[in-house]
Amino acid sequence: MKNLLVEKCSGENIKIKVGNVVIGGDKPVVISGPCSVENYDTMIEIAKQLKKIGVDILRGGAFKPRTSPYDFQGLGFEGLEILSKVGKEVDMPVVSEIMDTKDIEKSLEYLDIIQVGSRNMYNYSLLKELGKVKVPIVLKRGMSATISEWLYAAEYIMSCGNENVILCERGIRTFEKYTRNTLDLNAVAVIKQKYRLPIIVDPSHGTGLRELVPIMSISSITAGCDGLIIESHVYPDNAVSDARQTVSIKTVESIIENIKTYIKYLK
Amino acid sequence: MKNLLVEKCSGENIKIKVGNVVIGGDKPVVISGPCSVENYDTMIEIAKQLKKIGVDILRGGAFKPRTSPYDFQGLGFEGLEILSKVGKEVDMPVVSEIMDTKDIEKSLEYLDIIQVGSRNMYNYSLLKELGKVKVPIVLKRGMSATISEWLYAAEYIMSCGNENVILCERGIRTFEKYTRNTLDLNAVAVIKQKYRLPIIVDPSHGTGLRELVPIMSISSITAGCDGLIIESHVYPDNAVSDARQTVSIKTVESIIENIKTYIKYLK
Amino acid sequence: MKNLLVEKCSGENIKIKVGNVVIGGDKPVVISGPCSVENYDTMIEIAKQLKKIGVDILRGGAFKPRTSPYDFQGLGFEGLEILSKVGKEVDMPVVSEIMDTKDIEKSLEYLDIIQVGSRNMYNYSLLKELGKVKVPIVLKRGMSATISEWLYAAEYIMSCGNENVILCERGIRTFEKYTRNTLDLNAVAVIKQKYRLPIIVDPSHGTGLRELVPIMSISSITAGCDGLIIESHVYPDNAVSDARQTVSIKTVESIIENIKTYIKYLK
Amino acid sequence: MKNLLVEKCSGENIKIKVGNVVIGGDKPVVISGPCSVENYDTMIEIAKQLKKIGVDILRGGAFKPRTSPYDFQGLGFEGLEILSKVGKEVDMPVVSEIMDTKDIEKSLEYLDIIQVGSRNMYNYSLLKELGKVKVPIVLKRGMSATISEWLYAAEYIMSCGNENVILCERGIRTFEKYTRNTLDLNAVAVIKQKYRLPIIVDPSHGTGLRELVPIMSISSITAGCDGLIIESHVYPDNAVSDARQTVSIKTVESIIENIKTYIKYLK
Repeated sequence: MKNLLVEKCSGENIKIKVGNVVIGGDKPVVISGPCSVENYDTMIEIAKQLKKIGVDILRGGAFKPRTSPYDFQGLGFEGLEILSKVGKEVDMPVVSEIMDTKDIEKSLEYLDIIQVGSRNMYNYSLLKELGKVKVPIVLKRGMSATISEWLYAAEYIMSCGNENVILCERGIRTFEKYTRNTLDLNAVAVIKQKYRLPIIVDPSHGTGLRELVPIMSISSITAGCDGLIIESHVYPDNAVSDARQTVSIKTVESIIENIKTYIKYLK
Repeated sequence: MKNLLVEKCSGENIKIKVGNVVIGGDKPVVISGPCSVENYDTMIEIAKQLKKIGVDILRGGAFKPRTSPYDFQGLGFEGLEILSKVGKEVDMPVVSEIMDTKDIEKSLEYLDIIQVGSRNMYNYSLLKELGKVKVPIVLKRGMSATISEWLYAAEYIMSCGNENVILCERGIRTFEKYTRNTLDLNAVAVIKQKYRLPIIVDPSHGTGLRELVPIMSISSITAGCDGLIIESHVYPDNAVSDARQTVSIKTVESIIENIKTYIKYLK
Repeated sequence: MKNLLVEKCSGENIKIKVGNVVIGGDKPVVISGPCSVENYDTMIEIAKQLKKIGVDILRGGAFKPRTSPYDFQGLGFEGLEILSKVGKEVDMPVVSEIMDTKDIEKSLEYLDIIQVGSRNMYNYSLLKELGKVKVPIVLKRGMSATISEWLYAAEYIMSCGNENVILCERGIRTFEKYTRNTLDLNAVAVIKQKYRLPIIVDPSHGTGLRELVPIMSISSITAGCDGLIIESHVYPDNAVSDARQTVSIKTVESIIENIKTYIKYLK
Repeated sequence: MKNLLVEKCSGENIKIKVGNVVIGGDKPVVISGPCSVENYDTMIEIAKQLKKIGVDILRGGAFKPRTSPYDFQGLGFEGLEILSKVGKEVDMPVVSEIMDTKDIEKSLEYLDIIQVGSRNMYNYSLLKELGKVKVPIVLKRGMSATISEWLYAAEYIMSCGNENVILCERGIRTFEKYTRNTLDLNAVAVIKQKYRLPIIVDPSHGTGLRELVPIMSISSITAGCDGLIIESHVYPDNAVSDARQTVSIKTVESIIENIKTYIKYLK
């Protein structure tokens, strides 16, 4: 992969600033929130609690890529509007997934960071259009994407003018069925050693099991990632999507405490 | 997958008519042409020869999803215009891949069949928009998509109003490196036994090696598929993309002869 | 893989003669029988019926590698004795799996062909010992073995002196869950084009679903394999192991009829 | 997996004592040494240095399962004899792989722990025989073994009478080619949460790249594993096998220092 923008170069690693938050800096960031934005009341409750425990960025899905067309598809722009309003009220930057090139422009009114989901990592039309905006992009790894393909996907965005790309490892598809995906922390180590992009980890999709999220969060941090994106909810069992991998706010709090201890003593 | 449109039902299997060609009928169809539309002269030469040997439908890529942004990305609408013109001159229906919702409407001026590539099988925005047109859709299986996810992708299109979906098995990603992908003919047999959609096979991507295309074409036909889509070129070694898996027109001819023998004696 | 015994060379492909049966010759062979040898009465009944419909070689498991230690582990040498007796009575060569180097010598009293199961393809101690006997070896592909590793496993046997190796494709492990394994017919085509070893296909393990066995048998034959190994039983539903993928004798008969038609007209 | 010996139960987690070392106790153990025992002089030099930096157990391969029969196959019992002699001289317990049931008895004269390699995880004959000895067994996960199959492999040993089983995660086979295997730390977390067996991690095979070994060692420890097994050599580049993933003694030292810091502050 010679001479690509993603490559390690003489310059510094890319640091991405969103509001007061720096991704790729000295301190891992924590992004959290529900899989889906459900309504204003639930969202503001979640956001207030996450803000209080020190979460840096708020997530919430509005355009939901669901396997079945008959499953809840998200609130769309109504969801983004709620997310944006809530983000402002609690003073947190917000991130959400966009799936269609035609939605990008309007989404910029609401979002501080745009997420490209795993299912759209190879959607090169979307990536090229996202290369034309300035907002940071969280680029999830495709379900069966090689590290090399993933970096080329980042290159698609960067070569069109937007170098604010944050990679996100979220597990790959293997034969193993106990966990939803196989979290590939080797990939985190490779990215941090050889390339200059920030990388975060999604232990929620990376395991699919809420009881594994805390331990794999710490394991990800020690593998060198620049942050975590964790699905959380005030009532995890009642989350309208991905309940099985959604943790409580209290669990996020203990993960943050844990990270602080690691960081304090070890870096 | 109870009560889905993709399911086997009391009604007949879906047959899709494009010009004089029936996909899902008694006779397997052959779709062929170059990976990329390169220019008018090459395209018309390829098309005339393919027409002569009995190929049913002409393919040619205009929007090319390439791993690297620095590789040839296709001629875009200029390519579709060439393909359409050539198709009319030789009297063959044409198929090409569309990757962006905003290109669908314009592409309808040129295409008889729209292809959803492997990288976009999970692009639900695209699938939903394709559910609103009437043109048949070739839906390639995602690189690591389960049969179930693939059928749900078809359901996305069908549930929006377009039941003209043709599945296309093109190999899945496994640990095996000798071949580009592992052609999953089990999947063909499953689809034909349990669901009512037509299914074709792409032995070019399914193997990645031109010398395997003829034998795997026949193996696919005997596994029960409704047709083949084969990358071919008048000068395979000079094809601007996927040369390693592109066969000569003469090879396509021998594949067609072979299929005829099988069909004659055995069905 | 230069200069290996498995390589295609100036000499002819390897043909293996067992009794009156030739594996790797002009005509595909059919090996069939129950997953496990259960008792003499059932075995002789199965064997007589298989002999009558034209099956070439009789199979029956005596040493069974089961995932759980609490599942039926096979009758061991008692099973081999039954199999051998039955084989002689119906005049059919017999094949069964051996899992332990210390059992090889004794098994030679009973078996015409020794099978190395998928779980033991990397058991190099076993392979080396099997290289010291003269009996033909059916070498199943490991669950996640590359074609190259599989050929090296054959080379282990051949380099120790026994060139009578028959490869057996039985499906590889992938993310797909609908079928037990993904039958890799690309691998059959690769072996037949580039190497001189005979190769057979096991559509029973390769699909895990009895309803797919007949169609995938034919698809395997047209991919160029030299034969099939099919799990069958007089009462498939009552088979003590692998019932879900075991077919009736009648089904084996129709597969054989089908193969004959293909062979007659096409080769 | 109800009512199996591997299950979490009312009793304590299994702790395995080897000399003065406890595996599965409060403190992670470090096992290290060369991929292959090469000769006495190199082995004693490596051992002395490893002892000095605090490595708990010495490893060294004597029976080497190599993909090609023409690659160095190890020194066999001569290698075990060297390893045993060296272990005694530096007062460290020793572990090495055994591949054949007929070698078990003799190997007990030399080894404190027997390793079952990845290629032999499904070798049930070997597992049953190892269930009849008392020496602890390191059971590596098969290349494409599910967690469930791996636990059943442990159950094979335990149900025959030997409960001293130490699981070893060493990476699984996926489509990713950058790393030799994909280290599955999810599996470590699952085992520690639900089952009572100790589990160690092999970051050498789990990555295949020496530059990833230190970071993945720490990531493994924070995922909860009970120890590490690391390939090391006084002259890593000259190691006769697996040089690309072999680290220097100095690197092992820094890993141990790192672990101590983590343990001191965090447990």
